[in-house]
Amino acid sequence: MAIVVQKYGGTSVGTIDKIKNVAKRVAKRKEQGDNVVVVVSAMGKTTDILLGMAEDISANPDRRELDMLMSTGEQVSISLLSIALKELGCDSISLTGVQAGILTKGFHTKARITDIEIENVKKYISEDRVVVVAGFQGVDEEGNITTLGRGGSDTTAVALAAKLGAVCEIYTDVDGIYTVDPRLFSTARKLDEISYEEMVEMASLGSGVMETRSIEIAQRFNVPIYVALSTEEWPGTYIKEFDELMETKVITGLSVCDDDIMITINHVPYTVNNISMIFQKLALNDINIDMISQTAPSHGYINISFTAPQSDKFLIDRVLEDVKNKLKGIEVDVEEDITKLSVVGIGMKSQSGVAAKMFKIFADNNIEFKQVTTSEIRISYTINTDDKEKAVVAVAKEFNL
Amino acid sequence: MAIVVQKYGGTSVGTIDKIKNVAKRVAKRKEQGDNVVVVVSAMGKTTDILLGMAEDISANPDRRELDMLMSTGEQVSISLLSIALKELGCDSISLTGVQAGILTKGFHTKARITDIEIENVKKYISEDRVVVVAGFQGVDEEGNITTLGRGGSDTTAVALAAKLGAVCEIYTDVDGIYTVDPRLFSTARKLDEISYEEMVEMASLGSGVMETRSIEIAQRFNVPIYVALSTEEWPGTYIKEFDELMETKVITGLSVCDDDIMITINHVPYTVNNISMIFQKLALNDINIDMISQTAPSHGYINISFTAPQSDKFLIDRVLEDVKNKLKGIEVDVEEDITKLSVVGIGMKSQSGVAAKMFKIFADNNIEFKQVTTSEIRISYTINTDDKEKAVVAVAKEFNL
Repeated sequence: MAIVVQKYGGTSVGTIDKIKNVAKRVAKRKEQGDNVVVVVSAMGKTTDILLGMAEDISANPDRRELDMLMSTGEQVSISLLSIALKELGCDSISLTGVQAGILTKGFHTKARITDIEIENVKKYISEDRVVVVAGFQGVDEEGNITTLGRGGSDTTAVALAAKLGAVCEIYTDVDGIYTVDPRLFSTARKLDEISYEEMVEMASLGSGVMETRSIEIAQRFNVPIYVALSTEEWPGTYIKEFDELMETKVITGLSVCDDDIMITINHVPYTVNNISMIFQKLALNDINIDMISQTAPSHGYINISFTAPQSDKFLIDRVLEDVKNKLKGIEVDVEEDITKLSVVGIGMKSQSGVAAKMFKIFADNNIEFKQVTTSEIRISYTINTDDKEKAVVAVAKEFNL
Repeated sequence: MAIVVQKYGGTSVGTIDKIKNVAKRVAKRKEQGDNVVVVVSAMGKTTDILLGMAEDISANPDRRELDMLMSTGEQVSISLLSIALKELGCDSISLTGVQAGILTKGFHTKARITDIEIENVKKYISEDRVVVVAGFQGVDEEGNITTLGRGGSDTTAVALAAKLGAVCEIYTDVDGIYTVDPRLFSTARKLDEISYEEMVEMASLGSGVMETRSIEIAQRFNVPIYVALSTEEWPGTYIKEFDELMETKVITGLSVCDDDIMITINHVPYTVNNISMIFQKLALNDINIDMISQTAPSHGYINISFTAPQSDKFLIDRVLEDVKNKLKGIEVDVEEDITKLSVVGIGMKSQSGVAAKMFKIFADNNIEFKQVTTSEIRISYTINTDDKEKAVVAVAKEFNL
């Protein structure tokens, strides 16, 4: 029998009734003859409620203890789903991250999976039980409970699928991957399939449905992912290895991300050591830097800009204070109302002219951009959030998305 | 430095403010020079809320999954208390039952501690940290999370104190052990100290403050227990080994318990096998039987009565259905409105006449009793709940409680 790993997110298990519905879907799949491993997130707003309690006690709660606290959210979901499955006569067992052997290391609240001791999960599969695993959590070398940060449940699901040689199905509140976010461009098309490479770019650019890290793991271990609605039987999108049979348009999708801030550090004395020091301090705090741009040195000084997640603002501020103490005379400017707009397509590898087209669109529509970066299969621009709608419509029309 | 194990119950950590108060008390004690291990229960009504969710899914939720669910309650408390301690500058670390090495076996939802792998707790104590341990929970040989049933957090605290050679302080919403529940007899006296033996009897008879099991463990390992208010610095009651200096009245206390039901099985064919079968089935379901009485055989039949916790009614009904199928013709009667009234005193060992006095009190006050059982240091009666108040006042006055 094939093994399938299904993941249901927080909104899909947000109420008792929704948990019962998920149980029905899982039990049906099991009856159809597949072995099912289910990964679930915390119910709806649980994580926010728990975090709120911690913040009522401390403005900067200890991260190790936050992981201890947050991990209870998924533990509630897995036990309730397992109870619901048994109520339907479908034998099941719930496992915390620790019990499922999810080994992690790195920073608390954003740990990384290093390996999975899969024996326990396999044993229960061999007993013909549905195994319900807590997403988002694991254990470090000292036995501390860790959490994986944003999109962590997807990562748990993909990593389990990789270890089990299984397909990974991500059930969520959107019915697949679109060329553009349909809320921004109503005539956007749903893709039947998309390559890992393109999806990594789309995800890292904030296309919302999945986080980069889980796609990267899927790509490395060649785990096919299927993204679809958790509530209806409705065709979704396959994320898989690129093959020649895939539809090859120059541009597959347009990603828009409002979650970043842009930091500019002016008047940095130009030495390689100074620049390296800044980015090393950011890296040590596990801050995800994107869109780095730098002016040419002038009179021994340079200006550096980079974007980073809004959610890391607290950490970034702390690092920048530290940098200011080391490099007297620098000026730091933080812009919060920026939007990152990116076009992604594996076709860009073989077809040029995308950048030229983009610059023309921006010029024709009087859209100013602050930064531009390119990779083999994407081009990204930082623009003012005010220009977002205008830019999305113009780009989507031009590339027929 | 001495080690002290402090336990705070659910009402003592029922709100964020209460958790902050507990943190202040613990931090103060640590500053005074003691090493502190804190055991906490789930916040206020958390356990009831979680149980309600499970019961919305299944009328008879799987017990292993219930333990998985329930154990999140204490996990939330320990992480929040640890965050609160760190906020006060008091270094601390929270540990789940599993992490604290609480090994258990037996039935899910009422497992028993078999041993504690104390190394982890000791290591953190040696690092001069307050160790905050989740009460009520442990792990079984297969790595499943278990819970200890009613009063489980006390058991965790006493067992940890035993293993650490520490004093155990139970902080709660009553300020000590009383001769009679003050809600039933307003002039009841608070005891400065009470022996383990008497406390075991009082507890097993439902005197509410602590459960029997934890006192038994304390007695076995000679762990001194101090019961006091969690909110005020106010003298409480010591529970310790009996010594000759203790005040020796004939009767130390009066316990009243409304939590039991009385089951009577009439017309049981009188063979040792039949009776043994009934009680074995009850034992297999881990139902705590108390107050067994039996009529003399008449025409080859007997009637058996016993009391058991109201909370086990579901299990008892199932067992009785089974028994009915095996022994055709028996009749089962369940009385819910009964009260168990017991007088306890180590002085009864050396002074007789207590039973005679009790029978006279009941006769003078026209109180009917259904069962009577005695041990070396207690006498218990089952009466109608309607007669409770009358009986409590009469007995408390007679023995000057």
